[in-house]
Amino acid sequence: MVKIFEQYKEVYERVKKGANKTPVMTSRTLNSLVGDAKVYIKCENFQRTGSFKFRGAYNALNCLSEQEKEKGVIAHSSGNHAQAVALAATSLGVKSVIVMPENAPQVKKEATSHYGAEIVISGNDPSDREKLADDLVQEKGYTLVHPHDNKNVFLGAGTAAYELIEEVGQLDLLFVPVGGGGLLSGSSIASKGLCPDIKVIAVEPKNADDAFRSFYDKKLYPSVNPNTIADGLRTSLGKNTFKVILEKVDKIITVTEEQIVDAMQFYWERMKLVVEPSGAVSLAGLLYNEEISSWTKGAKIGVIISGGNIDLSEFFKLLRKKLPKN
Amino acid sequence: MVKIFEQYKEVYERVKKGANKTPVMTSRTLNSLVGDAKVYIKCENFQRTGSFKFRGAYNALNCLSEQEKEKGVIAHSSGNHAQAVALAATSLGVKSVIVMPENAPQVKKEATSHYGAEIVISGNDPSDREKLADDLVQEKGYTLVHPHDNKNVFLGAGTAAYELIEEVGQLDLLFVPVGGGGLLSGSSIASKGLCPDIKVIAVEPKNADDAFRSFYDKKLYPSVNPNTIADGLRTSLGKNTFKVILEKVDKIITVTEEQIVDAMQFYWERMKLVVEPSGAVSLAGLLYNEEISSWTKGAKIGVIISGGNIDLSEFFKLLRKKLPKN
Repeated sequence: MVKIFEQYKEVYERVKKGANKTPVMTSRTLNSLVGDAKVYIKCENFQRTGSFKFRGAYNALNCLSEQEKEKGVIAHSSGNHAQAVALAATSLGVKSVIVMPENAPQVKKEATSHYGAEIVISGNDPSDREKLADDLVQEKGYTLVHPHDNKNVFLGAGTAAYELIEEVGQLDLLFVPVGGGGLLSGSSIASKGLCPDIKVIAVEPKNADDAFRSFYDKKLYPSVNPNTIADGLRTSLGKNTFKVILEKVDKIITVTEEQIVDAMQFYWERMKLVVEPSGAVSLAGLLYNEEISSWTKGAKIGVIISGGNIDLSEFFKLLRKKLPKN
Repeated sequence: MVKIFEQYKEVYERVKKGANKTPVMTSRTLNSLVGDAKVYIKCENFQRTGSFKFRGAYNALNCLSEQEKEKGVIAHSSGNHAQAVALAATSLGVKSVIVMPENAPQVKKEATSHYGAEIVISGNDPSDREKLADDLVQEKGYTLVHPHDNKNVFLGAGTAAYELIEEVGQLDLLFVPVGGGGLLSGSSIASKGLCPDIKVIAVEPKNADDAFRSFYDKKLYPSVNPNTIADGLRTSLGKNTFKVILEKVDKIITVTEEQIVDAMQFYWERMKLVVEPSGAVSLAGLLYNEEISSWTKGAKIGVIISGGNIDLSEFFKLLRKKLPKN
């Protein structure tokens, strides 16, 4: 894996050309809550398309051959990966097709199409959209951009941690949400490469704890009926990301649904940051998991917010109803 | 007024010691919505206590004599100024007393008391709290820190514009919300001093248009029964801020309640920023007021977000009700 880290400078140079350098935020209140620690929040909610996913998609698309670029790419996703592939493709002049389930929210279909992708509607079962995507790969020669289990995707994702450490210097601990493991595997390669002594702590919803169980049993379990508000973390680990995680991650901890919302509320109310539930899971682990409290006191800690895409239409509808007349 | 600008470097040096240097955010989508302009958003929602008010309070408290500091300060406010004075006082080791109406939300009383102020409860009429504060000034020798109509307060507030222009360079236009006129008068002195050709545009809710009418009639009208969601902008201009505004501001425009919420929604959904209604008024002016659209095309534009303090307890209560069980 040392070899993989050696590619990082090059990966980062590539990703930087398209992605935002996202701000790092701090909070005195947060520092004091964590026992006089110094906490650096990497805000991928400010990334293009609203999540870290743009980094991986942009890196992967840049690594395609000219012939692959000419034929176009395909992805299946109803979430942040869809928008990321759509915008990365458009910004590189590549055609993109996104397979979305029939029941995906209209607002997500529109956002993805707005970024320039062609939307193809599949059945609602995850296997339906995978099959439809595979068929289109066969038929049209598109390249499939997997949401996490693809080296160029997860190395690209890890530039979030790379950029954070470049800016704030050596860290003692890094908290990263884990779903499919793309952000986690990339970030652990980057951060262990830059800070050999860092401890990487993955945080997962207790209600979707397949990565937690897989990690400690050293056996890849799929995610079965995950029931969590953190919609971006319901997916299973990939074979490749799992390999990296076993080698590079120090600990996986879990958080409850209430703790996820408490962390979200801290971000919104105290730090004025709109963070989606999946994005708040890493902070929930830092604030509420007692197992790691002996590590955090006085430490220099990175926390990655993975994204900020949450449907606020209900909230604003209610607000509009209460408006005074002009 | 030129003389006043000459003090700015010193004011900024003083404010910088206690206040956050707040980030400047940009959005490709926003730039394209405003006719290929370059828009720089100054995020005072990230200021300490969640609004620009900390700048003014901190500057004013620093300018007190040792004797005044020893006796303590008093302010009457149920909003952002209360928290700002409380924290500024605490951070300088000065006692603070905040007069709040009985019906102020419990959450605001707690926040202010958390920052170290003593809370004194008055009747609900604005005149009640002013009278109680005056009585305490007489009785205890406190110094009153006015929320806007005090030179050190409004010069401190204007460091938001000063810092923005120091970071991004010359601007063609600056959009600032107007309520009592503290942020507006300070920002117009600072920005005209740094950019002689800048046009300063104040934005006010149509439902609280006392500044608009005062400005064009050149006669100070009080704010009577303002009925706007922008709770920070319901107040009347001060005598001193009005004088500066008449001299330095180029235009005052108004926006509807719906436009304020539309601008808020843009910040929350597209830029992932929690902005309070008063804070979104400046963007509403830029996006929706047609009078100024001939000025904005291709221009370099600053927009000040005044704050991000909005009660989200209902939103999170609803979210918690819908959580899956652990």
